[in-house]
Amino acid sequence: MVLLSGGLDSATCLALVSRWGWTVHALSFDYGQRHRVELSAARALARKYRVASHRVIAIPSLGALGGSALTDRAIRVPKKALEKARIPVTYVPARNTLFLAFALGVAESNGATEIVIGANALDYSGYPDCRPAFLEAFERVAKLGTKAGAEGGSFAIRAPLLDMSKADIVRLALALGLETGLTTSCYDPGKGGRPCGSCDSCLLRAKGFREAGEVDR
Amino acid sequence: MVLLSGGLDSATCLALVSRWGWTVHALSFDYGQRHRVELSAARALARKYRVASHRVIAIPSLGALGGSALTDRAIRVPKKALEKARIPVTYVPARNTLFLAFALGVAESNGATEIVIGANALDYSGYPDCRPAFLEAFERVAKLGTKAGAEGGSFAIRAPLLDMSKADIVRLALALGLETGLTTSCYDPGKGGRPCGSCDSCLLRAKGFREAGEVDR
Repeated sequence: MVLLSGGLDSATCLALVSRWGWTVHALSFDYGQRHRVELSAARALARKYRVASHRVIAIPSLGALGGSALTDRAIRVPKKALEKARIPVTYVPARNTLFLAFALGVAESNGATEIVIGANALDYSGYPDCRPAFLEAFERVAKLGTKAGAEGGSFAIRAPLLDMSKADIVRLALALGLETGLTTSCYDPGKGGRPCGSCDSCLLRAKGFREAGEVDR
Repeated sequence: MVLLSGGLDSATCLALVSRWGWTVHALSFDYGQRHRVELSAARALARKYRVASHRVIAIPSLGALGGSALTDRAIRVPKKALEKARIPVTYVPARNTLFLAFALGVAESNGATEIVIGANALDYSGYPDCRPAFLEAFERVAKLGTKAGAEGGSFAIRAPLLDMSKADIVRLALALGLETGLTTSCYDPGKGGRPCGSCDSCLLRAKGFREAGEVDR
């Protein structure tokens, strides 16, 4: 069960897992993100990798929680400068907890036992829910809070990109033959989904390609 | 932040917490449950206890997970006999994980640091996500997976009814002056929300009142 946002990281996870010979399910979320174009990217990637199923879960209420520049249009997406020291305003309260909770429900329903998430603790050090200790804690919740877990099964939360730099991820994606042009990273895309080029996510992506010595096409 | 289903247990939690002098927020979920009448009960209780806010979060996708008699009308709600040894078919995959994840997001958004859930490990021993170890594991997720937690705060998951029998809960509810008639417990209500009287939840409730020597009105 791959959490597939449509961004570079989750697409790389999908490309990676699809090499492992498992039955792959993909799961995306429509939570009113201003970068909804990523859902089109997710659909294209799911088709490309011929996943067994691709479910887009609507979470209309996530945006209503407020407090994040990603869902609240009253909050500006910061531009032009990567801010790494503090928790970014693009943080969405409890987002990964929610996404993993949904993934767990879907996984339990269709018998999947591995949940793959493109979380990254290096470049997203400002997001608490991208850190290893969080993912381990959630794995325990998954084991204890499900019928499958109670009956002796377990759920692994896998974050294969956890310790990679964006340049490492770019290198891995290209090595796996991922068409990175199918992915989208921008937090604040313009018309037709054009990346703004100056939000944190665009800047990180550009830095990754630059450091990997590759061109983002 | 009280998780308020509209049932006896969560209503008792609300009655209890409203005595503590805190600012109380209530949170309910509309997940396509066949016993949607409980949402009307939740609204009535929220009004009665004059909560600071009552939010009903729509989770249209939870029912689509399938696998539970509570959301899938193709699965019959068992009647007439309490089955305690196995995990009931009314189990909804990862439901409490999801509910707590939403509660965490809302709590973080509005500054609440205590999440109160009417989970009960005694009568609901078949539900893995009603057990103490699960709730402790989720508390760790809440601490590690949020901005507030990362900045030194924490979230307590409180389950004041965890070790109580249904009779204990009835006694507590009545001692707190809860109008139990405002609550609804039936998993499979008939027209106008009339309890069926024979599902697990109705049987448990009746047993609780009987053992407490009280009348359910």
